[in-house]
Amino acid sequence: MQLHADVIAPVILGTTGILFFAVLGRFAARRLGQPSVLGELLMGIFIGTVGYVFKNDFILVLREGAALFDMVDYMLHGEPLQQAGEHALGKGQAEELIAILGGPNGESYLKVAQTVDIFSRYGVIFMLFLVGLETSLGDLRRVGMQSTLVALLGVIAPFSLGLILTILFLPELSLQTDLFIAATLIATSVGITARVLQDIGQHQTKTANTILGAAIIDDVLGLIMLAVVSGIIVSGGVEIWEIFLIILMSVLFFVIALVFGPKFLNFMIWAVRHLDMAEAKMFISFLFVMTLAWLANLIGLATIIGAFTAGVILHDGYFRHWGDATKHRLSIKDLISPLETILVPIFFVLMGVQVKLETFLDINVVLVALLFVIVAIVGKLLAGLGALRGCNPLAVGIGMMPRGEVGLIFASLGKSLGVLSDELFSSIVIMVVVTTLITPPLLKLALARSNKDC
Amino acid sequence: MQLHADVIAPVILGTTGILFFAVLGRFAARRLGQPSVLGELLMGIFIGTVGYVFKNDFILVLREGAALFDMVDYMLHGEPLQQAGEHALGKGQAEELIAILGGPNGESYLKVAQTVDIFSRYGVIFMLFLVGLETSLGDLRRVGMQSTLVALLGVIAPFSLGLILTILFLPELSLQTDLFIAATLIATSVGITARVLQDIGQHQTKTANTILGAAIIDDVLGLIMLAVVSGIIVSGGVEIWEIFLIILMSVLFFVIALVFGPKFLNFMIWAVRHLDMAEAKMFISFLFVMTLAWLANLIGLATIIGAFTAGVILHDGYFRHWGDATKHRLSIKDLISPLETILVPIFFVLMGVQVKLETFLDINVVLVALLFVIVAIVGKLLAGLGALRGCNPLAVGIGMMPRGEVGLIFASLGKSLGVLSDELFSSIVIMVVVTTLITPPLLKLALARSNKDC
Repeated sequence: MQLHADVIAPVILGTTGILFFAVLGRFAARRLGQPSVLGELLMGIFIGTVGYVFKNDFILVLREGAALFDMVDYMLHGEPLQQAGEHALGKGQAEELIAILGGPNGESYLKVAQTVDIFSRYGVIFMLFLVGLETSLGDLRRVGMQSTLVALLGVIAPFSLGLILTILFLPELSLQTDLFIAATLIATSVGITARVLQDIGQHQTKTANTILGAAIIDDVLGLIMLAVVSGIIVSGGVEIWEIFLIILMSVLFFVIALVFGPKFLNFMIWAVRHLDMAEAKMFISFLFVMTLAWLANLIGLATIIGAFTAGVILHDGYFRHWGDATKHRLSIKDLISPLETILVPIFFVLMGVQVKLETFLDINVVLVALLFVIVAIVGKLLAGLGALRGCNPLAVGIGMMPRGEVGLIFASLGKSLGVLSDELFSSIVIMVVVTTLITPPLLKLALARSNKDC
Repeated sequence: MQLHADVIAPVILGTTGILFFAVLGRFAARRLGQPSVLGELLMGIFIGTVGYVFKNDFILVLREGAALFDMVDYMLHGEPLQQAGEHALGKGQAEELIAILGGPNGESYLKVAQTVDIFSRYGVIFMLFLVGLETSLGDLRRVGMQSTLVALLGVIAPFSLGLILTILFLPELSLQTDLFIAATLIATSVGITARVLQDIGQHQTKTANTILGAAIIDDVLGLIMLAVVSGIIVSGGVEIWEIFLIILMSVLFFVIALVFGPKFLNFMIWAVRHLDMAEAKMFISFLFVMTLAWLANLIGLATIIGAFTAGVILHDGYFRHWGDATKHRLSIKDLISPLETILVPIFFVLMGVQVKLETFLDINVVLVALLFVIVAIVGKLLAGLGALRGCNPLAVGIGMMPRGEVGLIFASLGKSLGVLSDELFSSIVIMVVVTTLITPPLLKLALARSNKDC
């Protein structure tokens, strides 16, 4: 037996430190009238870059992320330390990281990096669950034709533009990577636009309704595209019948979840009817979202698609056994939000830390990032054309622009799946930052220039 | 780059599976009128034993817990797989576990075991924070003489009895282990007694007040003893001046936290005044409890002592910047409880899984467990003598008996610190189960036999 102090102490220090920087970033963003996600992301990029320049061991470990877990995997399969390191990290970086991990705090750094990685992934799951919770099937049905047209164009334009341009300008990438980048360009994070519209008192105009309606559909269409593209990547094939199979699986997953989910929920709630209301809501919500996330992964979709579906299905009404659900003191959202509040900022900061600004020392990478930014902007401006009839198509297009957290989730998934290199991941994050940053001023300009409403 | 499916999927399956069994155990306990902790603990023992008998790879990994993380540590320091395994696990068990970890799901099992370990430790921190939150300094001052006497006896009697008997009957153990076992015997989990008293309508008698008052003091005294004993173990010395130093450190920690904590809190709350109320409460509470937990560990105390202290200091009144705190829709407790609700059951099940029932095939281990049970019962019955004056000393003594979650926390800490072997850990958990199980019927008997109140 080995005597050691509390093994959780370094984990506490690492994760709490990251959360501390997240709060700083969020606070700064709020003071400057910017969305939280931007503050946390930029704070992550800042500490990641400073840590890299000053060779901070912990930050260097954190920047490598999942590759280190592969290294442990190789070691468990019998590869010696040096070989496993080079296998997982590449020859260039392996030496420095092996020295860090073999140092006095190596195991702690690895454990903290792994915990932060797991926390941030749980954060994304809870975030998508809460997005789903606020999306009801009724809302989807009520969205007008105008919004549907904008949403469809907002998927088709950036996707095809992205696909064409990556094939033309980045011929060295695999088709899988091209598809993934194109799918990432679809994402819309409408929270930012909604706040701007509210700030300038235009959140009840038809332009606002068009944008918000289109964004709801975009969430669903974006997730379906993500399901299809990541399914193609995991299965490894790009044959037409495979793509068809994945689309079929996605549709089947949604349909089966929507049909059997409620029955399963009612049974589970009946089974735990002797627990207190808050316990029951918490346990059932957690078990339900995790079950669907895991099932989605099992059939080759992303876990977040399961989480989103769970949110769409679940609502407080299921818990009527504990009395009128509208009068419950704590809603499902109240109970799950604390988990999201702690975990999601960790995700944003981690994404920032893993942006390798030094890759932009290569002018080609700068050009790639620029390409992504342009496609992201032009693609959504084209989507605005769906609102041509007497409306303010420019404002609608700009309103669809910010990628925010949705773009980040796509990027992190691409990194996990192994289709996005450090350079591509960093370029996509920069694209997310730029589109999120320019939306509020541009939107205000577009709405001020022309006051006509559709 | 390596292509793989979502790395969080196995983690989701493992932790959600454990939570599912926890909910089953809790539900069964409630139906049988038993405390939740007992249901979750016994469920853990059940799945741990079944998994061991049927050689379930995941359960075998989970049962080893922290030893596996030591193994990775040795590998990072250059030891080959085989040697690191034998170093961390001992020659006998290493072979089987190396085969499992080197198998196709090895890295997943390790990652899940590590995540479950980290989750359960966070769970304990939140649990102690919430215990602290419900302990105010005012309550401590209002506790009567009778309760104080019972509490003091309830610390002194089991501790000295435990120390004497381990020295006499288990001479092969180190003094550090003896001290730790003795400290574990102090713990009182009064929630169970409080529920029994409420069930039989005697929660407002003087006997009840004596027990509940004594238990509040016991929480504090128990944590101080734990601080001292774990301080002795970490520092490695048992010299009088070292013990004095540790006591001094503990007292200083409490005093400094109580004096400067509020100032620090007010500053932090002022700093985040532009955030929403729920965000601010969540971030500040989380950062405060984690900071104190980490500081406690830094000076050689246990993290849970910092968490408890944070709970004693913090209350909703600090957040008056967001309006009258009594009217806030969500209290600190509302915001932190969801974290505890998910994480603590995972802790209880994990503790159960790590009980190695097969060690009881050795009659000596059975005798050790029996010794612990007897000392635990007799020690607290002696404490009841503090309520002699006209009271019901038998009922008071029985009411102080259940070790519940507090005993488990001590046991897990002893395992982490490396002073409790598998046999001792398993025996202590059995002691916790027995004392928790026998309290309700015995208490009812003792109160029915004599209705006189003090």
